[in-house]
Amino acid sequence: MREECGVVGVVKYGDESHPVPAALQMYYAMYALQHRGQESSGITVYDGKEAHSIKGMGLVPEVYKKNDLLGLKGKVGIGHVRYSTTGDSRIENCQPFIVKYKSGSVAIAHNGNLINGPELRKKLETEGHIFVASSDTEVIAHLLVKELLKYDSVVAISNVMKQLNGSYSLTILIDDVLIAVRDPFGFKPLCIGTIDSGYVVASESVAIDTLNGELLRDVKPGELVMFLDGDIESHQLFHEVNSAHCVFEYIYFARPDSIIDGRLVYKVRERIGERLAKDYPVDADMVSPVPDSGITSAIGYARESNIDYEESLMKNRYIGRTFILPGQAMRETAVRLKMNTIAENIKDKSIILIDDSVVRGTTSRRIIDMIKKAGAREVHARIGSPPIVAPCYLGIDMASRDELIAAHKTTKGVEAVINADSLGYLSIEGLVDSIGFDRDDLCIGCLTGAYPVDIPGEKMCNRRQLKIHEFQ
Amino acid sequence: MREECGVVGVVKYGDESHPVPAALQMYYAMYALQHRGQESSGITVYDGKEAHSIKGMGLVPEVYKKNDLLGLKGKVGIGHVRYSTTGDSRIENCQPFIVKYKSGSVAIAHNGNLINGPELRKKLETEGHIFVASSDTEVIAHLLVKELLKYDSVVAISNVMKQLNGSYSLTILIDDVLIAVRDPFGFKPLCIGTIDSGYVVASESVAIDTLNGELLRDVKPGELVMFLDGDIESHQLFHEVNSAHCVFEYIYFARPDSIIDGRLVYKVRERIGERLAKDYPVDADMVSPVPDSGITSAIGYARESNIDYEESLMKNRYIGRTFILPGQAMRETAVRLKMNTIAENIKDKSIILIDDSVVRGTTSRRIIDMIKKAGAREVHARIGSPPIVAPCYLGIDMASRDELIAAHKTTKGVEAVINADSLGYLSIEGLVDSIGFDRDDLCIGCLTGAYPVDIPGEKMCNRRQLKIHEFQ
Amino acid sequence: MREECGVVGVVKYGDESHPVPAALQMYYAMYALQHRGQESSGITVYDGKEAHSIKGMGLVPEVYKKNDLLGLKGKVGIGHVRYSTTGDSRIENCQPFIVKYKSGSVAIAHNGNLINGPELRKKLETEGHIFVASSDTEVIAHLLVKELLKYDSVVAISNVMKQLNGSYSLTILIDDVLIAVRDPFGFKPLCIGTIDSGYVVASESVAIDTLNGELLRDVKPGELVMFLDGDIESHQLFHEVNSAHCVFEYIYFARPDSIIDGRLVYKVRERIGERLAKDYPVDADMVSPVPDSGITSAIGYARESNIDYEESLMKNRYIGRTFILPGQAMRETAVRLKMNTIAENIKDKSIILIDDSVVRGTTSRRIIDMIKKAGAREVHARIGSPPIVAPCYLGIDMASRDELIAAHKTTKGVEAVINADSLGYLSIEGLVDSIGFDRDDLCIGCLTGAYPVDIPGEKMCNRRQLKIHEFQ
Amino acid sequence: MREECGVVGVVKYGDESHPVPAALQMYYAMYALQHRGQESSGITVYDGKEAHSIKGMGLVPEVYKKNDLLGLKGKVGIGHVRYSTTGDSRIENCQPFIVKYKSGSVAIAHNGNLINGPELRKKLETEGHIFVASSDTEVIAHLLVKELLKYDSVVAISNVMKQLNGSYSLTILIDDVLIAVRDPFGFKPLCIGTIDSGYVVASESVAIDTLNGELLRDVKPGELVMFLDGDIESHQLFHEVNSAHCVFEYIYFARPDSIIDGRLVYKVRERIGERLAKDYPVDADMVSPVPDSGITSAIGYARESNIDYEESLMKNRYIGRTFILPGQAMRETAVRLKMNTIAENIKDKSIILIDDSVVRGTTSRRIIDMIKKAGAREVHARIGSPPIVAPCYLGIDMASRDELIAAHKTTKGVEAVINADSLGYLSIEGLVDSIGFDRDDLCIGCLTGAYPVDIPGEKMCNRRQLKIHEFQ
Repeated sequence: MREECGVVGVVKYGDESHPVPAALQMYYAMYALQHRGQESSGITVYDGKEAHSIKGMGLVPEVYKKNDLLGLKGKVGIGHVRYSTTGDSRIENCQPFIVKYKSGSVAIAHNGNLINGPELRKKLETEGHIFVASSDTEVIAHLLVKELLKYDSVVAISNVMKQLNGSYSLTILIDDVLIAVRDPFGFKPLCIGTIDSGYVVASESVAIDTLNGELLRDVKPGELVMFLDGDIESHQLFHEVNSAHCVFEYIYFARPDSIIDGRLVYKVRERIGERLAKDYPVDADMVSPVPDSGITSAIGYARESNIDYEESLMKNRYIGRTFILPGQAMRETAVRLKMNTIAENIKDKSIILIDDSVVRGTTSRRIIDMIKKAGAREVHARIGSPPIVAPCYLGIDMASRDELIAAHKTTKGVEAVINADSLGYLSIEGLVDSIGFDRDDLCIGCLTGAYPVDIPGEKMCNRRQLKIHEFQ
Repeated sequence: MREECGVVGVVKYGDESHPVPAALQMYYAMYALQHRGQESSGITVYDGKEAHSIKGMGLVPEVYKKNDLLGLKGKVGIGHVRYSTTGDSRIENCQPFIVKYKSGSVAIAHNGNLINGPELRKKLETEGHIFVASSDTEVIAHLLVKELLKYDSVVAISNVMKQLNGSYSLTILIDDVLIAVRDPFGFKPLCIGTIDSGYVVASESVAIDTLNGELLRDVKPGELVMFLDGDIESHQLFHEVNSAHCVFEYIYFARPDSIIDGRLVYKVRERIGERLAKDYPVDADMVSPVPDSGITSAIGYARESNIDYEESLMKNRYIGRTFILPGQAMRETAVRLKMNTIAENIKDKSIILIDDSVVRGTTSRRIIDMIKKAGAREVHARIGSPPIVAPCYLGIDMASRDELIAAHKTTKGVEAVINADSLGYLSIEGLVDSIGFDRDDLCIGCLTGAYPVDIPGEKMCNRRQLKIHEFQ
Repeated sequence: MREECGVVGVVKYGDESHPVPAALQMYYAMYALQHRGQESSGITVYDGKEAHSIKGMGLVPEVYKKNDLLGLKGKVGIGHVRYSTTGDSRIENCQPFIVKYKSGSVAIAHNGNLINGPELRKKLETEGHIFVASSDTEVIAHLLVKELLKYDSVVAISNVMKQLNGSYSLTILIDDVLIAVRDPFGFKPLCIGTIDSGYVVASESVAIDTLNGELLRDVKPGELVMFLDGDIESHQLFHEVNSAHCVFEYIYFARPDSIIDGRLVYKVRERIGERLAKDYPVDADMVSPVPDSGITSAIGYARESNIDYEESLMKNRYIGRTFILPGQAMRETAVRLKMNTIAENIKDKSIILIDDSVVRGTTSRRIIDMIKKAGAREVHARIGSPPIVAPCYLGIDMASRDELIAAHKTTKGVEAVINADSLGYLSIEGLVDSIGFDRDDLCIGCLTGAYPVDIPGEKMCNRRQLKIHEFQ
Repeated sequence: MREECGVVGVVKYGDESHPVPAALQMYYAMYALQHRGQESSGITVYDGKEAHSIKGMGLVPEVYKKNDLLGLKGKVGIGHVRYSTTGDSRIENCQPFIVKYKSGSVAIAHNGNLINGPELRKKLETEGHIFVASSDTEVIAHLLVKELLKYDSVVAISNVMKQLNGSYSLTILIDDVLIAVRDPFGFKPLCIGTIDSGYVVASESVAIDTLNGELLRDVKPGELVMFLDGDIESHQLFHEVNSAHCVFEYIYFARPDSIIDGRLVYKVRERIGERLAKDYPVDADMVSPVPDSGITSAIGYARESNIDYEESLMKNRYIGRTFILPGQAMRETAVRLKMNTIAENIKDKSIILIDDSVVRGTTSRRIIDMIKKAGAREVHARIGSPPIVAPCYLGIDMASRDELIAAHKTTKGVEAVINADSLGYLSIEGLVDSIGFDRDDLCIGCLTGAYPVDIPGEKMCNRRQLKIHEFQ
């Protein structure tokens, strides 16, 4: 099951009473990661004797009542925000996933997607394992408990990782021990921060900022970090020759104020805009973003091109769950509820419109139509990512190959569909340069159709070589 | 009771069935005006026989269930979003306020504030009137029904307006007739749009845009507009020599994509930024807004000064109702939940920080401290409004005179309090020029302490002369 | 608008702090009166400065949250439970109805029905009064405030009562003064009890019992009782030659453990059963009640007839809001959800089935069919009230004249419709004897079609003569 | 975990469309069993492809929304109502418990209590099984899936039953096959009924009555009943020499209109009353029940003794979740909210008070005190069960041995504690005769301290001999 998610973990040490309980700090941290999942949220805290949880459907402020949250005692815990892409949004699939077994309890919060999740589930079922939910996380929990019956936590997790194919940034609570794990390719982000008398692990550094903490470092690909008595114990369990960091965290998914694997997302997006200006210059009256995701690249484009940055679209900050009747008029209303044109800025102007990506092309078409209806003379679309030609199997909700417009059309073809006067996609080189990693250290499967891991029915890029550290 | 609010009215004409019912269109219109009030919302529709309402506490999507809304039949209705500044947030104060009297029903939605509301209430009480809520709207309803027992709608409303002192933009439903009224000074905005087979009245033109409608014109100060059988009937009941449009609608309150009394709010804010750049130039590395309200002025400042526009603060788009424990650490967390610094952009930089206004100074101080903590070398505050030296009695929630920092301190004093390296306030002239009205056509009471209407205990600017149209 | 309701009022005196606040005691009292109204509930308390309320749709435990209730400070208050018979169940119609006027606030809780409510409303509307709800209580509030502007509370209420035609047992809160009023005919019950450091007024004495209080006495027809500084001040404002106590309070509506106007309801129902046994003896195997309302009369019938009391129907104690699909099978299920036969007790038996009344006849038919389907040899229906031949205009939800089976059919005809082997209705004499009042002191309009008050389109029983006390 | 519960199962056969869907019929059936559990409820339906569920905390009408329920398509399903006695009332413990495994899905609804539940759980944990909830049902599910991987349903269930020690009446859904199972002792009831084009299985026959069905027969102790294509397939898997039917189902827990193992509960209670009259006669004015559980026995006592049956206590039918402040006055109010005295019936009377059982003695004391305060001359307590001297381990929520008053005091001692003028407990012989089974076919562990199954730390009655049918 493909999911976009955010994970956190907090541990406080020492004997002194903590003015801000771990549960409350996770609550704030999940608030900072809300953009990574708005469908459900959960928190698990170990109180010295057992694990207690609060889970629920909805946004963070909807799930947690003050008194319930303050009732969650304990110095260590993990949390999760989730957005399911498959519609299987039952409360049973809410994370953290908590199980009890012979020696205690295990809670897991997972961001990522297992390629071999269904296969592992089938294998476990054959061995007699039974499942109550449909998430990969339950599969990981079963594998982990199997190993924990025989080995200590580090070996157990190492043995589990050997079996997993896919992306996973995990926060794990084995009784009262917080563990952070990142898959050997480092697909999804995971970082560590120091807070007052404690540590925080989170999908993005903005969660650390929110707790007035300091970003210490990223969890390394293939690394297991265990938090014990105020110390950090690192185990580099696996080592790939190359990483495979997800480029879409930089392009679209992460918050611009997050620092992921040493790169400030804002700067990456700014460089993307600059590169677009260099590669696809055009004489125009203004540079405008599609808010909010196009803003930073538009700033970069404007600066590099020396064309005025000017807003042509205004987003409604208050849009929530709404309902729309069938019909064309209603579909237009649905777009206008979210985004309105600033007609006076647009009229008779030639506009360079910066968007982060084009997936199906339908939203781009509606926005450009709206801008042209408001009187724009020309709309030149500049896209902050290369054409998306293949699906993501590793944790970003895109679309099926059938739906991806760039899988079926040339750039000229897409230009026509979205009704742009010109269209420029960022090149893969431009993207790689903007992020600042070696191309071989990025996952660009959705841009090339060749993936860093073996995916049934897809090509694998053949540059990699797995090196598993000997584990003593 | 002081309230910030948004009002709408919709009427569909003709016999043909309307694919989008009036109630649903008001729902979308209120969504577009949600920034004007998040505390409660209400809608009243006349179904041919009587008025039916839905009201509730909370945001628009929380108040209206699809089936309830589609159950509100009728071709004409009014709606309201409300933010109370007095804490009297009972369901009884939810608008529209609906009453039944001898000849039918009257529903009223009100944006504004009556100076003589309590006095009128007392007078009505002396006459034996009894009240169930605490809003000015109930007072207006009582006055109106008194007149409707003797006169037709237009005369009745005219007679009521003679008694009202203060700001009021009203949408009124007298049985099935929609009426829009704006006070003789035009304090608060109110405009008319055409939609498919109908008309919409709304506080801001963005509501018209959302319905794919066309802005027709503003309701004029002192004008009553009645919507009858597809026609618009205008009655210019009162005529002041000068208007008194609220400057804070342009500075802060309205959406940038709204056109108010002929001025696009975005353009006003952009000119404010340009003027600040001219009047308070400073050599710096970058221009940054306090999001979201400072963005447009920052774009203007950057362009005029030729200094790079760069973001230094990132807003959390998902922040909702939250809770905070007592203590200094928690107050910082409260700020960081809403807004985070982009440290890498800030470090060692000299920053021109553009905010829309300074009220108490406490938020500005926290933001500037946060930026300096992130490593800024200098922070030069540039404020998109003149110093606020007096309270607003006409519908903007500011603060009491005691709380207003500029009522007690010089600009140098404020500069010190907010910890800025320099501080520049927009001049009144700069504001007037940016808006583009004659100074005498604006209400700048909060900037001068002299108000266009008589307010007990305050000075009145003596330039005005009331001219009441003879009414035949 | 016809409504069945329950009212309460509580006042605590002295300076000592009260361990159980007035609001909490009203909460328990309303619990005891829940059978009088399950649709909505409200409570108003005066805190020394102003009136505060909690109101809501649903049962008492659904409306009041603990913290909200404990937040209602004050030594005096009134409460209401309501069951509307007209379907106009908006929150606006929730009582107590509270208004603010020149000199303070008035809150009213009303049990009863005004014959001239619509007429009074129209008259007030003509005078310019405006209304926000549709209840008689709002009419009474308007009349009362009119008088309070000129007179003190007692004269004001007396002047209002002169205008009212119908039934009303009221608890009133004029600022901090609790007043209880009963109409001159004493249609609906109202009694006074002493509690620890205070008094309670309630529709039924069970509310007093629940507070561990002592029933002091009933409020007399036409009496106003004012609670002042720990004293009771009585004003006998009106005096009718005869009372007109509602017989259906004894037959069906009140709880059996209540004492109304000196008669224990249980004893009245027991005597009804005895009288039925004397007047309609039949040789049978057992006497069974239709639970719960037929139980006490069945006990009386069994004792008098010396035939075994045996249950043949079992009620589901947990039935709440449910839903039923269309169709005959579903209608049967709807009955069985509420009531099941005890087949083994019934099979081959001749059963005397005691029910409190027959209104439309449809429920009786379904129950008797169910019993016969379970194998009963004979079912002899004995009804604890005379035939209902006319509607109630004074506060009991019966049915329209069209729907009343006894308005159109003879006893033999009803017997056939409900499929009984024999049918015996209590005679009016039997009812009068069982209650123990003079016939002229009871309202038996629904049993005769002649009413103690003037009702447009209906006959009036001509025995009465109004005497209004001179008021000095 | 000890739980009182009710289970149901429904299967419809044939191709014709069923006007009443299986899910809706289970909803009504659970309504009829609501007295067996008010804490949570769940329903699982197999739609031809997979199992779908609705579960929630609260009463049946609170858990199921109409549209959700009608959305549960499928001809077969099981349901559950639950009352947890351990306070572990998380949503995770809601039943049916549903798991997915290699070959499909299994859903289980369980009424009863496993003696060796924790031991089996530990054993499974040792084998690597992991658990997400704390109920016995999850243990049964794990055991069953283990067997289903190797054997067909019947053998698998037989193998599971060999491992279970305790009480269990189960409805099971293995994909689309409904199975009913009762433990070899038949502790808890389980019966089968025919409905229109289908079958229903339920804890009590009242659920069958509610669906207008016919009670076919009880599931026999040790029997597995499988519902296939409109046929019933019976497998008598185990056969004990004796049964061990729970006597408290007859005494207190089941509805009086249920027929359990051939005995109408009402008749048993009536005979209990008659026996008490024979064994403990006393000269008194009246026989009164403690409502509702003492009613039927009181009717029996009154008839046998020829003393008038008269109510002295009235129950509030509307009492729901409420809250009580600390203090003695409040505890009295708590009792009076539920039950009020009918003082006039009581005053100066000598009363025989019939209650179903005495557990801790505190409630009995409060009730008798209340009756004496209302003026009773004498109160003679007659109890419809023998003294409870030991805990129940098999599914009835009683109390710990420490709390059981009869475990520590003689009858005279209890008489003094509860303030009765005399006290008569039903004898074990009297109970056995009233139920009409051989003493050896009843579980009377709580009355003797010797149990039909081996319970660590308790005595076992040594009369039994297990005979397991050879299974081919």
